[in-house]
Amino acid sequence: MSAFRDTTAIVGIGETRFGKGLPESELQLACEAVGRALEDAGLSPRDVDAVGSYTMEATTDFELARQMGFGNLHFFSQTGHGGGAAPGTIGHVALAIAAGVAQVGVVWRARKRSGTASRVWGQTAPVLTDHWKWSRPSGLLRPVDEVAMLTQRYFHDFGDARDALALIAVSQRAYAHANPNAQMRGRPLDRDDYFAARMVAEPLCLFDNCLETDGAVAIVLTKAERARDLRQPPVLIRAFSQGLATGHQPMADFHRRDAFDGCSAVAARNLWRQAGIGPKDVDVAQIYDAFSPLILFSLEAYGFCGRGEAADFVRSGALAADGGLPVNTAGGGLSEGYVHGMNLVAEGVRQMRGSATSQVAGAETCLVTGCDSTPNGALLLRRAA
Amino acid sequence: MSAFRDTTAIVGIGETRFGKGLPESELQLACEAVGRALEDAGLSPRDVDAVGSYTMEATTDFELARQMGFGNLHFFSQTGHGGGAAPGTIGHVALAIAAGVAQVGVVWRARKRSGTASRVWGQTAPVLTDHWKWSRPSGLLRPVDEVAMLTQRYFHDFGDARDALALIAVSQRAYAHANPNAQMRGRPLDRDDYFAARMVAEPLCLFDNCLETDGAVAIVLTKAERARDLRQPPVLIRAFSQGLATGHQPMADFHRRDAFDGCSAVAARNLWRQAGIGPKDVDVAQIYDAFSPLILFSLEAYGFCGRGEAADFVRSGALAADGGLPVNTAGGGLSEGYVHGMNLVAEGVRQMRGSATSQVAGAETCLVTGCDSTPNGALLLRRAA
Repeated sequence: MSAFRDTTAIVGIGETRFGKGLPESELQLACEAVGRALEDAGLSPRDVDAVGSYTMEATTDFELARQMGFGNLHFFSQTGHGGGAAPGTIGHVALAIAAGVAQVGVVWRARKRSGTASRVWGQTAPVLTDHWKWSRPSGLLRPVDEVAMLTQRYFHDFGDARDALALIAVSQRAYAHANPNAQMRGRPLDRDDYFAARMVAEPLCLFDNCLETDGAVAIVLTKAERARDLRQPPVLIRAFSQGLATGHQPMADFHRRDAFDGCSAVAARNLWRQAGIGPKDVDVAQIYDAFSPLILFSLEAYGFCGRGEAADFVRSGALAADGGLPVNTAGGGLSEGYVHGMNLVAEGVRQMRGSATSQVAGAETCLVTGCDSTPNGALLLRRAA
Repeated sequence: MSAFRDTTAIVGIGETRFGKGLPESELQLACEAVGRALEDAGLSPRDVDAVGSYTMEATTDFELARQMGFGNLHFFSQTGHGGGAAPGTIGHVALAIAAGVAQVGVVWRARKRSGTASRVWGQTAPVLTDHWKWSRPSGLLRPVDEVAMLTQRYFHDFGDARDALALIAVSQRAYAHANPNAQMRGRPLDRDDYFAARMVAEPLCLFDNCLETDGAVAIVLTKAERARDLRQPPVLIRAFSQGLATGHQPMADFHRRDAFDGCSAVAARNLWRQAGIGPKDVDVAQIYDAFSPLILFSLEAYGFCGRGEAADFVRSGALAADGGLPVNTAGGGLSEGYVHGMNLVAEGVRQMRGSATSQVAGAETCLVTGCDSTPNGALLLRRAA
């Protein structure tokens, strides 16, 4: 049995409001989210001695520590690859806490999409010396262009599934209507709206794309035994893995012989190996959705259905509130907000606490994943017994 | 007792040659060092399932994995803050291995200082929006300017110690003469040379500065029990901590009330707490030396002598081959090569194997530290019983 299993817990979550054009700086947003997460946990900034975030994060650890009044830090880590990072940022800090290197960790992601500071995806250099030289000259300038290529391949292999993508978008919008912090709350979306929307990169239309979001999300972790004395029901980290497949090239697995047996499948196999439970034991999932087809790819990689069966799985209604595997129950990147997957972690925690706005009755196990089409990872969360 | 203690081991080290103007790219240097480290360990690239490096590292994990033929990766991490990072890069991967998330890890640092690609220190933006705005306008443009400020403060508090800095430079040059891979091997340096050298930033002269080095170093880790079956004598990771002090600002702790009770002291206290042994048990140390005074600051922070006593400790001859605490026994950043502290880790491993070119007889415990004046960390290495 894994020595790590269930030894750490998420004990605090904090979010700012999500929106376009927020006036605060990324640092201010980070501080607000971290402050709320610590208050949620009933811990003081002085208790914090470990931090983790994304390599893409603009707020530095030392600046956040200074502004928040953290204690002396015994651990700091960053995880690369953008949307694939969230599970890693949390997993790293959890490992440090499990080993006794640190006691209380904060993980955060703050970003403003309205400005240019964090919009790395929008920047294509005039001369390309890295791996982007293999795709940028072919006109694949945006992430959506690359995921559209993957989706075309998926449709070629397994049949057109735009109707399944529409179901995903509509299902997540329904969850957003119940979530006071969702950017798209109250803005209706049905199947007809989806099919009437403009194409962004064929076969992906407007509603297959995540939102542009300014905002921040923070997570507080500590040891499972300490968690029992804190303010909130502890949410145990059952298992953690990252995934980077042999031959992987970020956002461009369409180069690989098998485009759909990549980083997610690597993370999934290592996660289930450690967890002692499997996909059938998962009650609710938060699946990274910068683009709706990533959910199809991830459902298969994590074993919720067989290869090529994800569209039918979605068509069966599984992802909706009354389905077998409710997915992105706060609205996800498509309809709640796109804080690089960290908001998915927060929703996973709420589901395990029993406090989600679209609570899955009796949910005890939640999978949270990172971006399917980059190096990524996953966390398996469990309600403490 | 720490659950992490002695559960992981360094089983392979690999280095390229060190020099100025090497023709290879950073990727080529990284591959060469990693290949040698795996060969040293008797492991195949396919065995590797975890990687770690610096946020400053130019070679990406997925590119290295592709070029080397690594297996599917279950863990990847980066550590920030330049010269402070090496212990963190290794510690993170060790934590993943100890927890069973991954089985075999590779950590590497490859850099070319002759080009501009990695010379972030030389780049000062025309408009400063981050913390550098507090020091750059005062003319503190280079790291050496900032460490000179710290050194002036140290001399003000505890008395001039240029003679101790000279002893450090001369001592490390002596070690370099025995090391076939040292850049400065065969180039004599004595006290008179030191005091005749030009000032770079008062009170720091040429020989207080680390070398400009192109090169790469790689480290291979696995579980301690697996290490026993591999090619080399296993070197156990006894303890690990990082350190980021409250109120710290990288390279500029001269702003703090106490400039010398910072990140190193934070890492040191947490390291000794976990280790179950103390500075008196250390037989040999590899202390990060981008600049010679960092060794004075670190000797005090890690408890090898009292506050303000490091110069006298050095004057006693402690750091030399026949002293009480031989330091930087391959020549260090001043005389072996400056691969951002990763070469210090390799030398620590050689000392624990008994294979160093200036082997400390019977050495069983080695401290390896990161850069004193940034967020940093330390590893405590032990020869396996």
